[in-house]
Amino acid sequence: MADIGFPRCAASLKGVILDMCGVLYDSGEGDGVAIPGSVDAVRKLKASDLKLRFCTNETQAAREKFVAKLRRLGFDICVSEVFSPAPAAVAVLRERGLRPHLLVYDALLSEFEGVDTSDPNCVVIGDAAEKFSYANLNEAFRVLIGLEKPILFSLGKGKYYKETDGLKLDVGVYMKALEYACDVEAEVIGKPSATFFQSVLNDMALQPHEVLMIGDDLVNDVGGAQQCGMKGVQVRTGKYRPSDQKHPTVTADGTTDHLAQAVDMILSQRGKS
Amino acid sequence: MADIGFPRCAASLKGVILDMCGVLYDSGEGDGVAIPGSVDAVRKLKASDLKLRFCTNETQAAREKFVAKLRRLGFDICVSEVFSPAPAAVAVLRERGLRPHLLVYDALLSEFEGVDTSDPNCVVIGDAAEKFSYANLNEAFRVLIGLEKPILFSLGKGKYYKETDGLKLDVGVYMKALEYACDVEAEVIGKPSATFFQSVLNDMALQPHEVLMIGDDLVNDVGGAQQCGMKGVQVRTGKYRPSDQKHPTVTADGTTDHLAQAVDMILSQRGKS
Repeated sequence: MADIGFPRCAASLKGVILDMCGVLYDSGEGDGVAIPGSVDAVRKLKASDLKLRFCTNETQAAREKFVAKLRRLGFDICVSEVFSPAPAAVAVLRERGLRPHLLVYDALLSEFEGVDTSDPNCVVIGDAAEKFSYANLNEAFRVLIGLEKPILFSLGKGKYYKETDGLKLDVGVYMKALEYACDVEAEVIGKPSATFFQSVLNDMALQPHEVLMIGDDLVNDVGGAQQCGMKGVQVRTGKYRPSDQKHPTVTADGTTDHLAQAVDMILSQRGKS
Repeated sequence: MADIGFPRCAASLKGVILDMCGVLYDSGEGDGVAIPGSVDAVRKLKASDLKLRFCTNETQAAREKFVAKLRRLGFDICVSEVFSPAPAAVAVLRERGLRPHLLVYDALLSEFEGVDTSDPNCVVIGDAAEKFSYANLNEAFRVLIGLEKPILFSLGKGKYYKETDGLKLDVGVYMKALEYACDVEAEVIGKPSATFFQSVLNDMALQPHEVLMIGDDLVNDVGGAQQCGMKGVQVRTGKYRPSDQKHPTVTADGTTDHLAQAVDMILSQRGKS
């Protein structure tokens, strides 16, 4: 059933966007592990005439750090090909002249170097994990509630993710907490935001219908890409759940067992596999 | 303007329910301070033919503890007159045969003595303050997400409260966080739940129209009591804000400067002041 509904657009594609965690690798102790076949799949895409970008909601480390990790796992990837929420947030902050109070993982702070954080007039939260203490969340709350018009940015809106030692609460949960406390709606930067996907398309200089998104997260990867006019394929690795196929609002344009299978199908439709 | 719209039901009243923090006293360092006139107001009510109960969403201490504090401040009050969420939760847990995972302030744990907390099949959260660490919230989340049908009880749904050193996030914020993480709607125990107010009325053996609620919180005190069929008067102490008078859904049946004024008006309407 791997090819059921696989989109027939592959022949006319000009680019592919790949989610990272759950598609390229599984996170966990140390660097985590590459998902079988995915290192080769990325190599094949790069050898094709398709443009390739990587799109992640990773906010626990600066891009340099997690790109280095992926290279250690064997992937041919460089920082300029990777789109993540923190640099997108920095662009938004600069554009709107905002000075953030940052509640993010320490390892992410380098992405915000040079950003003025004095006398903050907005709050940015990422997946801060252990840094989501009562004191830190309260501090972010006090900044927000002290503003005439509170502005909250959330780097993604995930509920939870899986690590080797179990499920962990993600940034979306704390976004909801601050939204309720301050009667404010957060601006989400990262997947599934259409603005975020559009910034990747802009960098590729391609139209949405020319690009396919491949991810393990039905709502944030597939649904987000579809909202933006792209096709979206889900892989049965990472956080895929069989119940995704009965999701009330999002239906993937195709589903494959893993990235390697998706790439083989794309390349074979193009007569190059 | 203190008497504008003060309800004319006072003559036919048989009972009064008082909120505590913000009506009787302001919390803060040590025991906090009694609001001027409130010790006398309670004494007058007790000397009248009206039944009197106290109703609070306090979940940072067991009733024994905060009743002792109020007595030190000069109030004539005893534990059996005080209704708070923890004992109400214990009653619900017993009735439904539930074993809670407790995420509450240490000082509240004594209220749950004798409750079976082994192999939990629900989660109870209170205003845990500093205990709302990432690790503790994650632990509560894992219990919930591991249940076939997650059951979450929240002891109140307040957004924040004020202490001498500033605003503090309240339990409702963490309730929203867990609701989002687990796709579940919490059952709120405490004000403004009608079940909670009804339990106070049952103890008074009175009908809703025979009882007046006096509080500083428009939504949780006044709105909750009105939902239950009582009249609700707001005092301009505690967390009262002038903007309350333009609230979109809740309008107090009366507003007074403080408890002392409300009590004088009730007793004068009854010809006993």
